[in-house]
This record gives sequence, structure tokens and C-alpha cells, in this order.
Amino acid sequence: MMERRLRLGMGGGGRGAFIGAVHRMAARLDGQWELVAGALSSDPGRARASAADRGLAPERAHAGWAEMARAEAARADGIDAVAIVTPNRLHAGPAVAFPNAGIHVVCDRSLAATLAAGEAIAAAAKASGRLFVLTHIDSACPLIRQARAMAAAGDPGEIHLVQAEDLQDWLAAPADPGNRQADGRADPARAGAGTVGDIGTHALHLASYISGLRVAELAANLSSMVPGRRVADDARILLRFAGGARGMFRAGQLAVGHENGLSLRICGTEGGRDRAQENPDLRAVTPPADSRAGC
Amino acid sequence: MMERRLRLGMGGGGRGAFIGAVHRMAARLDGQWELVAGALSSDPGRARASAADRGLAPERAHAGWAEMARAEAARADGIDAVAIVTPNRLHAGPAVAFPNAGIHVVCDRSLAATLAAGEAIAAAAKASGRLFVLTHIDSACPLIRQARAMAAAGDPGEIHLVQAEDLQDWLAAPADPGNRQADGRADPARAGAGTVGDIGTHALHLASYISGLRVAELAANLSSMVPGRRVADDARILLRFAGGARGMFRAGQLAVGHENGLSLRICGTEGGRDRAQENPDLRAVTPPADSRAGC
Amino acid sequence: MMERRLRLGMGGGGRGAFIGAVHRMAARLDGQWELVAGALSSDPGRARASAADRGLAPERAHAGWAEMARAEAARADGIDAVAIVTPNRLHAGPAVAFPNAGIHVVCDRSLAATLAAGEAIAAAAKASGRLFVLTHIDSACPLIRQARAMAAAGDPGEIHLVQAEDLQDWLAAPADPGNRQADGRADPARAGAGTVGDIGTHALHLASYISGLRVAELAANLSSMVPGRRVADDARILLRFAGGARGMFRAGQLAVGHENGLSLRICGTEGGRDRAQENPDLRAVTPPADSRAGC
Amino acid sequence: MMERRLRLGMGGGGRGAFIGAVHRMAARLDGQWELVAGALSSDPGRARASAADRGLAPERAHAGWAEMARAEAARADGIDAVAIVTPNRLHAGPAVAFPNAGIHVVCDRSLAATLAAGEAIAAAAKASGRLFVLTHIDSACPLIRQARAMAAAGDPGEIHLVQAEDLQDWLAAPADPGNRQADGRADPARAGAGTVGDIGTHALHLASYISGLRVAELAANLSSMVPGRRVADDARILLRFAGGARGMFRAGQLAVGHENGLSLRICGTEGGRDRAQENPDLRAVTPPADSRAGC
Repeated sequence: MMERRLRLGMGGGGRGAFIGAVHRMAARLDGQWELVAGALSSDPGRARASAADRGLAPERAHAGWAEMARAEAARADGIDAVAIVTPNRLHAGPAVAFPNAGIHVVCDRSLAATLAAGEAIAAAAKASGRLFVLTHIDSACPLIRQARAMAAAGDPGEIHLVQAEDLQDWLAAPADPGNRQADGRADPARAGAGTVGDIGTHALHLASYISGLRVAELAANLSSMVPGRRVADDARILLRFAGGARGMFRAGQLAVGHENGLSLRICGTEGGRDRAQENPDLRAVTPPADSRAGC
Repeated sequence: MMERRLRLGMGGGGRGAFIGAVHRMAARLDGQWELVAGALSSDPGRARASAADRGLAPERAHAGWAEMARAEAARADGIDAVAIVTPNRLHAGPAVAFPNAGIHVVCDRSLAATLAAGEAIAAAAKASGRLFVLTHIDSACPLIRQARAMAAAGDPGEIHLVQAEDLQDWLAAPADPGNRQADGRADPARAGAGTVGDIGTHALHLASYISGLRVAELAANLSSMVPGRRVADDARILLRFAGGARGMFRAGQLAVGHENGLSLRICGTEGGRDRAQENPDLRAVTPPADSRAGC
Repeated sequence: MMERRLRLGMGGGGRGAFIGAVHRMAARLDGQWELVAGALSSDPGRARASAADRGLAPERAHAGWAEMARAEAARADGIDAVAIVTPNRLHAGPAVAFPNAGIHVVCDRSLAATLAAGEAIAAAAKASGRLFVLTHIDSACPLIRQARAMAAAGDPGEIHLVQAEDLQDWLAAPADPGNRQADGRADPARAGAGTVGDIGTHALHLASYISGLRVAELAANLSSMVPGRRVADDARILLRFAGGARGMFRAGQLAVGHENGLSLRICGTEGGRDRAQENPDLRAVTPPADSRAGC
Repeated sequence: MMERRLRLGMGGGGRGAFIGAVHRMAARLDGQWELVAGALSSDPGRARASAADRGLAPERAHAGWAEMARAEAARADGIDAVAIVTPNRLHAGPAVAFPNAGIHVVCDRSLAATLAAGEAIAAAAKASGRLFVLTHIDSACPLIRQARAMAAAGDPGEIHLVQAEDLQDWLAAPADPGNRQADGRADPARAGAGTVGDIGTHALHLASYISGLRVAELAANLSSMVPGRRVADDARILLRFAGGARGMFRAGQLAVGHENGLSLRICGTEGGRDRAQENPDLRAVTPPADSRAGC
């Protein structure tokens, strides 16, 4: 058992936000974390109200992540780690500042909206010696780890093709002006990267994590299918992995009926393997012909 | 009941061929066809032996399709129809000659290896007034017809995306020199068009048939994945349909574990619809969020 | 190749019958059978008309199975085998007479309506030295044979429980007076045995065939659920197999939505195995906990 | 937002227990409960150690549920509610005492091991005016509520048959003497009721909850399949519901490969509905024949 609960801060995650609440639930599950500080919104009024919702002491309801990093690093009872749950485009600021202040980071995916921002975050994390956790939670799933270990051990043979997709439907309708979140993700200035940056990274990470392959080249068709949509809401991408394997990939947020359909297929010389996350217990293993009988 | 059984001829389909035997089984099922003539192989010895296998009268074991069209058209008891089951690249010759001789045609898919050949066949069929049946058998399936009728009636809404795939694994291993069929389909001179021409047309036809959409533009990545393979054995294709809908498509013959996996997904503004042929009774209908409850 | 086609007779299977047409399609598939004789109906007019439909020579359109067995056995070109496709209750007569006349038998399942009838058939078949084929076609399926071989080899361990079901829905509504077949199967005098005799034997055979277990004791609840129905249209049965394994079993013909849902589950000490025939390509293998990871 | 967090006590759930930890995770999820008191084990040493694990104040680490009910009811900051997570056989004591002391109860299922105990609990709950929550969590699932509402509204017609099953595999092997939990549930004196009492109530509750039907009669075969097992580890039960519908039911804890397979089928005059909890997002709706097309 722990001597004390870990002290968690949160950047973003105020009233009306989605992923901050998920991080808080996750932090509560094992009873070993305590949320004690936050810069929960860039809007001062919303930040104060959100901090009160969470029962934070007023002096730990910070006005922004820069102040929070400074103030918490200076306290004897400062936060051990911060959860960064701002829009992806805004990760880079806090994701550099907190490691620099000696504070561990749990950062929501996707990492960043540009390559430069991602590299700055990686450099700060490495220099700090602090933990930097990007929440690609799929890679903690035992089934995924088993699939990765199997692929590394040559099962199902040499991989020649990987298919992935991440499908949601919450952007299927024109953005509701009253829906802050959809608004934010559908605003090019704020979203950063459309459906690929928003969710496509999940499937792409999974594809690389399991197969051990890294993308070398791609050809993409990014579309804004919903009238008035200003960012890509559906993307289809052809991939060539280093070493010559090929891939195909779809990320879409107007796929009506898919709440969060993350699926993956690996085709190897000895067989295939499919995985669909909406039913994570379901694995379809396609055996080679000589161990299969038609009927 | 019929007064007499229909008289069928066959072009191609000799010993060692695959699809000719399937056509013969299909022709036998209802007991209303009788195979009475054939030009079963371009190899004279194989043609004779194959005709004997089938119990054809010697004078109706023709040396080639040109002779068969002429001779059968001249007989009082000549064939009513011919099944053309040669390699796809060789369809155009008989598929023009038989309609010109007044004989109905059942032609195995894919229609042809080039646009010019396909147009010549279409023109001959139209001019002849004879039936020209291309065996896209999926479009005879009641489920497919229902899906097509539903799409035409606006269910599931306006279609913005179509995905299709046709996966087999019989070309997963390097071509066996002793396997005539794989040899033929893997020889650029004889196959014509690799995996897209061999099976990709099946899924593409199905996508168009159900959705009512026609492909306007495409970007493709055709690969020869198996060492030594000289035609494409896997293809991934991005589509843009007339009217603006998008699509994505894979046809592959090295997908180990897939005997004949023809599947289709339609994404519309009101829902989605998936179909997978390996289990043709299985339909997954993905309802919109407001009629769906999480759990 | 064969020197001549096999000569088939048929007992039952006249106009309006269901399973006779299925036997005829099956006999046509490989082109090595020819239907040349029949006693297609117990109604003389229907027998004659049905024989004409099938193109039988008038002298081989027999008035009944007894006459057919006698006459065909006496001909030099008499039938090699007979397909018995009468209602199950009426199998015993021809199924004894034809072997006695030296004619091989293909008998539609279920074998008989009573134990005595079944034993008489078995004795006649054994004494005649002729082939007696009961059309439990599932046992010809490679997947089933593989499952049987696996069970015999101790995979998945010692079997302690078997579940089976056969569900149809064609008796879900009250019998239509104009529907001969439903009428026959729903008439206690003609059906013999209700849903268990009609289809339950299929699942039970499959359960025994795969597991190698034989039923020793049972407790059953046979129900007539549809108002006015006079035979059981749904049966649920608890089983005890010789050796101590247990089982559970349902056969029903009012299971709306199930066209022909034959499924089977085997629970062994080392794992489980499920099979569902409506999608015969689908096998769900449930691995033991130590090879399975939660997610 | 709440003015204060609710104060939770726990009866049972000490070191080595399973379901107490699940209740604690559930209580943490929304951040509105605080565990402040407990009688975590009947073993004094384990109770003390377990209370320390949970950070309980020593004066609220009670020696037993009777003392806890008395002491907590007397405190100004006494618990609002207690979670009863003892073995099912031991529910009745605390489940009567706490309501009598004016304390709300969250009681883990199954309710009790005998009818008399269940009725005593029900009477105490009713007399107290306090909330008594039995954790049939499935009935909080939106899909289940929708299915119940649909059945109540006559969809899919009049229900004539209900099938249910709850399958686990954690008792598949002989009880490990070092595994307290399996030991407890496999000891007739302590388990109370074997697999039906342990998990069968889950599926049976679900069947009644969705269908609105109540069991009137049953015939059961309870088996101890694993050598040395002293309670039933597998049960198969035929049901007759009030009103005439029938049912069939299996609960087993040696079904290798099933982590927690709770499934349900309802057959009605207008269709069928299946649900399987291991994949709770998966619903198979079987439509009637006239809206279904074969293929």
C-alpha cells in the first residue's frame, strides 16, 4: 500500500469539456490519486467555477498552466503529476513547461498538431528525466500486447499489409453552434488537424504498435463531407511502411452508427489477424488454407 | 414446365480449369439445361479429352470458339446459349462472335481486360438483340437487391462513403509451376489485369450496384507482394464517385485466411450498412446515435 | 470418369413437396446421376403429373414404392439407388423394401417416427449388404469432421457438457390450410413426432457425431405453443450422456427469425467450441483463461 | 454539485475478497462517495489489516456488522449507506440490521441463500423506508431498459420463450486450497447455493426483467462436474412462466473460455432478440421471415 495518495494537477478539463472528466474517472479508479490543483480553463470565470466543482482549494485553482507549473513546483506539497487535457493544438505549451518544472506528465492523445510541436515536447520530456505518458491506452490492453509480442515473434509470418480504421459519428451532423466541443474540433484555427489529428492517430499508433512497422510514405484523401464543415471529417490514406509492407487506413467522424470503432487487420504470410475495439473481446483469427476446411 | 431442356455450349472450361466446372454445376441445378457442345480448350488434345469427360458428341467438340459459333448457328439443334469461361483476357473474341451468330451469352466476370475489349463486347451484344449475361451473381441475391432498393429510396440517407473489399488467399504463396490456373492468372501476358481485373471488379460492381454511384476518379496502389509475382496481387484504391461521394477499396489474393471475403460498407447521412459475403446471412446495421444506447 | 450415369429412383417428392426437390438438385450437381424412375406421390393423379414434370418414362412412373422396388429390381436397366423423401413417418415401408430388393438407399432424415420402425430399417439395411445413406449432411462437412477428430483426440479435453439447438420459424404462425407441407408436419397422424422428430434429430445427431457421446437419459418439455397446433412445435430437453456428461437441447419451429439455425456447443475441460450453421464458416473457439487476456 | 460526499460503510470486502474491491471502484468513479467505515472481515486480524489498507480511522474499523450498524447510526457523521459484500449466505444478518438502524443498503447479488432469508431482508427493507439496492447492474444498462420497454410495448409480439445463460470458467479446475474465494464458493456450508445461487440469479433476473415474465414452475438438473466439487458447478433448468411461456436456462462455472458470458434470447410471435453480455454492444435482432430475404 502507498504511504500517501499521489497529487494530481489538471490542465484543461473545465465545465463542458469531455476528456478531462474521463481522466478524472480513470484517476479515481484505484484510489491512489487525488486531484489537488488545476488550470481548468483559459476562461477565468469558467476556471474558477470548474475548480469549485472539483473541490480545489482556491489557491490551487490557477489562472493558467504557466503559473500552475511555477507555483506547484514551489510548494512542498506540490503536484506529483499533471494531466494535460486541453485541445490537442494546445498541448505543446504545458507539455513543455511541466517537465521543465520537474513535474511528471500524463498527456492526452494526440500529442500535437504539428511536427515541430511534437518534437519540442519530446525534447523537453527527454531532457527533464520525468515520466511523459501519452494516453494510447490501447497499448496497455493485454490482447494488444499479446498481438504485438506474437508479431515480433513472427506470428502470423512476415507482415505484408496492415489495415486500420477509427470511426466515430459525432461529427455526422453539421456542428451545433451550442456544442462547444464539436465547435472546437471543427474550427480549423482551434482543432489543428481535423479527423486525422483528432482520432486517426489512435488507429495509426495501434497499427505501428502491433506490427512493429513504421510509416515511410503515404497518399491521402482528406475530405470535408458535411456541408459547412471546415476541417476534414473523413480521411482515407494509403500507406507504405519502411521495409515494403503496405497499408490502408480510414479515420472518419461522420460514420453514423460507429460510436468508437477502432479496428485493425494484419495480413501476414502465415495468416491474418483482425481486431475491432467496439467489441474488444472479439478476436477473429483467420487461419491459412491448409488448416482450414470449407463447408 | 419446359417442353425441352435448353442447349448449352461452353467456351473454355476444359480439364484443370476452375470456373467452367462451377458454371456446369450451376447449369445442372434446375435440370433445365443440357451441355451439348463445347470448345473446351485451345489445346486440341485437352479439348478432345475434356469433351469426352463431358460426354459431348464428337461432332460437337469444336476446335475453337469461331468454329463453334459458326457450326452451332447452322444446326437445327444448335445451342441456345454459350457459357464463356475462358481467361478474362480472352473473353472478347467469343463474346463478340456468339452474339453475332445469334447465340445468347452467359459470360463469366470480369468482362474484359481492356476498355476497348469491353466496349466491343457491349456493342456486339446490343446490336445482336441477344441476351448477354455477365455473372455478377451477387446482384441476384435478394439481400443485395433489398439493399439496392433501400439505397434508391434514400435509406440510409444520402450516401457519402462506400468501402469495398474482395479478399482471397490462393495467391499467397509463390505460384506453383504445376498449378495451371495460378500460373495463368499470375502471368502478365495471360492474366491481363492482376488482382483488380481478376476479382476487384466483383466488389466494385457490388459497390456501384447497391449504392447507385459510379466511379469518377481514382488513385490506386497496385502491389506485387509475393516475391517473383509478376502481376499485382494486392490493390488498394481511393475512389471519388460522381456527385462527390468518396470510397475506398481493396482487392487482394494473398490475404491468408480469406477464402472469398467480399464485403461492402455504405455510410450514409442516416446510418451505415455492412455486408460480408463469407457469411452472406450476416447483416450488420449500424443505427444512428439517437436510436442507439450505450451500455 | 464414369462409364455411365447412376440411375436414381425417388419415393415421394411429387408436386408441392419440399425435400424431394432438394434431393434432385443435389443429385444433379456432379452430373453423375440420372433420375429415371419414381413413385412420387401416394395420390395417383399427382404421381402421374409429377412424373411428367420430371420427364420420367410412363412405365417407370410407379404407383407405389412396393411396385417400384419389384419392377426396378427386375429390369436390366433398373435403378441403382432410391432416394426416400416421403414424410418421416412413412420411411419404414420403402426403407425396408428397397434394400430387400437389392437397391441402395439414400433416405432423408429423420430415419423413422418410432424406435421399432428405426430398428426394422436398420436390420433390413444390414441384412441386404446394400448401402443405406441417411442424409445427415452436416457430418460430411469438413469443419464437422475436423471437430469430431479433434474431440476424439482429446481436444478440448474431456467433454463434460454439450448444448445443441435447431431453430426454424416456418411453423411460427397457425398452419395455413392451403399449405400442404405445414399441414402434414402439423398433423399428429401424419407427422409422427413433432419438432423433435422433424428437426431435433439433426442437432442431436450432430452433438453425438462430434462429441462421440451417446444419450443415456433425458427429461423433456415438449410444447405446442401456437394456438391450435396439435404437435409439439418447441421442445427443450435435458440430457445425460453415457459416461456422465450432461447436455441441453432445444428444437423449435416457431423461433421467428431463424431460417435454419443449427448450433452446437461443446464444453470440455480444456476449452469450449461453438458452431452455428446459419453461418457455417463461423467458428468461435473459446480458449482457456491462461491463454486469454482480458481487456 | 453536492455539498459533501456521501459516507459509505462496507460489510465484508477485506483482503483477498473479490467483489468488495469492485464496489469500491464503482463508488470512486463519480467522486461523490467516500469510504469511511467497515467491518471488512469476520477474522479480527484480517479486519484490522484490511481497514488500514483502506485508510479507515481505527474507531471506524468495526469488529462486526452488528456493532457497525449500532455505532454508525449513533454518530453525527455516521455512514449514509453500507455496501454488503459478504458471501451471499451471510447477507441476511447485515441486510436486516442496517435498514433497521436507518442506514441505506447497497447489497451485492445474489440476495440470499434461502427463501426465508430473502423474505426477511425484503420485510426489513420495506419497514425501514430506507433504500435497498440489489446490484443487478444489468438492469441499469440502457440497452436492457430499451429491450424491457420494447417487450412491454409488445415488441417482438407475445413472448412465448425465453432462454438465458450465465457462463464462467473460474471453477473449471478443482478448487485450489490456497484460493480463498473458490474455496468459499465451493464449500456447501459457506456457499449456500452453488452456481445457481452464485450467478444463475443474474441471468434469471435479466430474463424476468426484460420479458416481464415470472417463473411459475421449473425442472432442474444440478450437477457437480468437477471431481471433488461439493456444490453444483453447472445447472440446466427448464422453466414455465406464469401465463404459459416456456424457458430454458443454464448457469455454469466450468465453461472454459467464458469469462462472464451472460446471454439472453427472447422469442416472440413477431420476432426474436438475442443479447450477449461479453460483447454488450452486440445485439442480434432476428426479423420475421417476411422482412427477411434468403441469399
